[in-house]
Amino acid sequence: MSQTPAPSPAPAAINRLAIIGVGLIGGSLALSLRQAGYCREIVGAGRDRASLQQAQSLGVIDRFELDICAAVHGADMIVLATPVGAIESVCRALRGCLAESAVLTDVGSVKASVVDAVRIGLGHLPAGFVPAHPIAGRERSGVEAATADLYEGRRVILTPLPESDPQACQAVRRMWEVAGARVEDMPVDHHDEVLAATSHLPHLLAYTLVSSLSRLGEQEEIFRYAAGGFRDFTRIASSDPVMWRDICLHNKEAILGMFKHFARDLELLGEVIDAGDGDRLLSIFQRAKQTRDRFCERPDS
Amino acid sequence: MSQTPAPSPAPAAINRLAIIGVGLIGGSLALSLRQAGYCREIVGAGRDRASLQQAQSLGVIDRFELDICAAVHGADMIVLATPVGAIESVCRALRGCLAESAVLTDVGSVKASVVDAVRIGLGHLPAGFVPAHPIAGRERSGVEAATADLYEGRRVILTPLPESDPQACQAVRRMWEVAGARVEDMPVDHHDEVLAATSHLPHLLAYTLVSSLSRLGEQEEIFRYAAGGFRDFTRIASSDPVMWRDICLHNKEAILGMFKHFARDLELLGEVIDAGDGDRLLSIFQRAKQTRDRFCERPDS
Ligand SMILES: NC(=O)c1ccc[n+]([C@@H]2O[C@H](COP(=O)([O-])OP(=O)(O)OC[C@H]3O[C@@H](n4cnc5c(N)ncnc54)[C@H](OP(=O)(O)O)[C@@H]3O)[C@@H](O)[C@H]2O)c1
Ligand SMILES: NC(=O)c1ccc[n+]([C@@H]2O[C@H](COP(=O)([O-])OP(=O)(O)OC[C@H]3O[C@@H](n4cnc5c(N)ncnc54)[C@H](OP(=O)(O)O)[C@@H]3O)[C@@H](O)[C@H]2O)c1
Repeated sequence: MSQTPAPSPAPAAINRLAIIGVGLIGGSLALSLRQAGYCREIVGAGRDRASLQQAQSLGVIDRFELDICAAVHGADMIVLATPVGAIESVCRALRGCLAESAVLTDVGSVKASVVDAVRIGLGHLPAGFVPAHPIAGRERSGVEAATADLYEGRRVILTPLPESDPQACQAVRRMWEVAGARVEDMPVDHHDEVLAATSHLPHLLAYTLVSSLSRLGEQEEIFRYAAGGFRDFTRIASSDPVMWRDICLHNKEAILGMFKHFARDLELLGEVIDAGDGDRLLSIFQRAKQTRDRFCERPDS
Repeated sequence: MSQTPAPSPAPAAINRLAIIGVGLIGGSLALSLRQAGYCREIVGAGRDRASLQQAQSLGVIDRFELDICAAVHGADMIVLATPVGAIESVCRALRGCLAESAVLTDVGSVKASVVDAVRIGLGHLPAGFVPAHPIAGRERSGVEAATADLYEGRRVILTPLPESDPQACQAVRRMWEVAGARVEDMPVDHHDEVLAATSHLPHLLAYTLVSSLSRLGEQEEIFRYAAGGFRDFTRIASSDPVMWRDICLHNKEAILGMFKHFARDLELLGEVIDAGDGDRLLSIFQRAKQTRDRFCERPDS
């Protein structure tokens, strides 16, 4: 048997990673890739020097640029991690300075409108662009909230476009896998509908519940008697208002569709309660409990 | 200075405690009072021998009776801890065997209809009856889920009636304080409205959300992409269906009132989304987040 030489350490797979918007999501990605030694250099960009300085001093990025073109210079991977509403203007600023070979991806909670924003901002959809959405997050935002393990075991949905270069898809997939995520593909519109159901609707229900109760006129008292279940239920109403404004503005159709579906179901439940139909109530609750227990308490969920 | 003899250990304040329905709520009360040495004897009663035997072998009760009259014989404190829908029949079974001096209380999540059920079941409202509701619970039910610390730091609402004897109120209050709870008084109807808002509405929204999504036709997939926020939000949809059927049947008016209020607010939010009014969305979400953070993240909440 001939002896093969010991493999030399793999070179960092990303040479220069540029993160535009170093907040919770972008910062956590940077931290986990850094921990894995997957990038030679991580450059941050944004509109606010103070928060980028903080990101640097927290060790999230190696250096930063306030000029977006400067930030992506020489980058082989560029991640757009600003709020969705800022993507178009960020891409406008990238016009003309995006290398042909660079892979471009994002982390936005909605996908169709991000694709539009990139197309409009850049003036075309580059083959290196692969939209992505990590299904992970927390109520706190900003780079202080970033952690290296945010994506550990979580799902990331890629919504590759007809224009997307397979190698770019592979690079984005690999990056998220290195961050600990399980990566899956999905068509853009399907993503937006699934997320309207499982994420956007619940967040908007939680916000509405808190608003609704706070207008009952006895705020202090109302919330005093809210038990643990209420706190769990409304936790997501502590999420970032800017992010949720943008999601509402950018996934309008799917969200309004889910509102209609839900409002009809709530009305039906009201009718069953009004009719005092105990058997029907029991079977509605039993089925919902079974579904929830089955899908949400699995170890891999 | 004359020497006073060392005080002898305080006698157990409750001689015989009878718990009708030894499940999560009744069982947890028994466990915490037992731990505090507050009862000389704890007797359980119910309709099912096996579950009472389990309660006994878990050390929750000293002994049990399947005959409710036998269970309350000689009891100075009787706690009705069955589902709300069973209170009337339990009280009917207690007719004629309730001692004049006994204190009677309950733990029902609704109060007006429990008061009616006691009045109808017993044929009158005894002076020893003090309705109560511990604002504590979990999604699991049954005596296996009972724990001695369930009420630690939680609120218990008493809704004393004009008929209620002040000494009985004091005894019920003291019992819950010994179990670790903070006890407050509230009028019956006010209780039912406050709880419709802070507990019943959120539970019914969570049940409805899960039902709604499960009818989208892609169940497996829909729930696959539900992240942590969704799990928190729907945790309460894993609650006991029997309990929630009974709550719906027994707090109909207040619940339907809250449904209307909420549905209107959701519709309004839909209109703001439809209009694409970003400023309005931002201010709605900001206010809700502030309210939620203020009331739900306080250490004493
Ligand atoms: N949070 C979640 O749970 C979650 C989950 C999945 C996906 N996402 C998506 O991830 C993205 C970022 O969310 P996040 O939670 O990370 O928010 P975040 O913590 O607030 O981070 C956003 C970052 O973008 C920067 N930024 C804002 N506007 C900008 C602009 N016009 N130009 C350049 N930089 C700008 C912010 O910095 P300054 O404000 O200091 O300028 C901040 O560093 C959003 O698209 C969201 O939909 C969020
Ligand atoms: N769970 C909560 O979060 C919570 C919070 C506050 C208040 N409460 C109130 O507490 C009460 C009990 O709830 P829980 O969560 O403790 O429910 P649970 O764990 O199911 O306990 C109910 C107990 O009542 C027994 N029971 C049921 N029907 C009966 C009948 N007809 N006659 C005699 N015993 C009967 C059950 O035993 P078998 O089924 O074995 O007969 C079981 O031991 C309800 O009124 C509820 O509104 C619950």
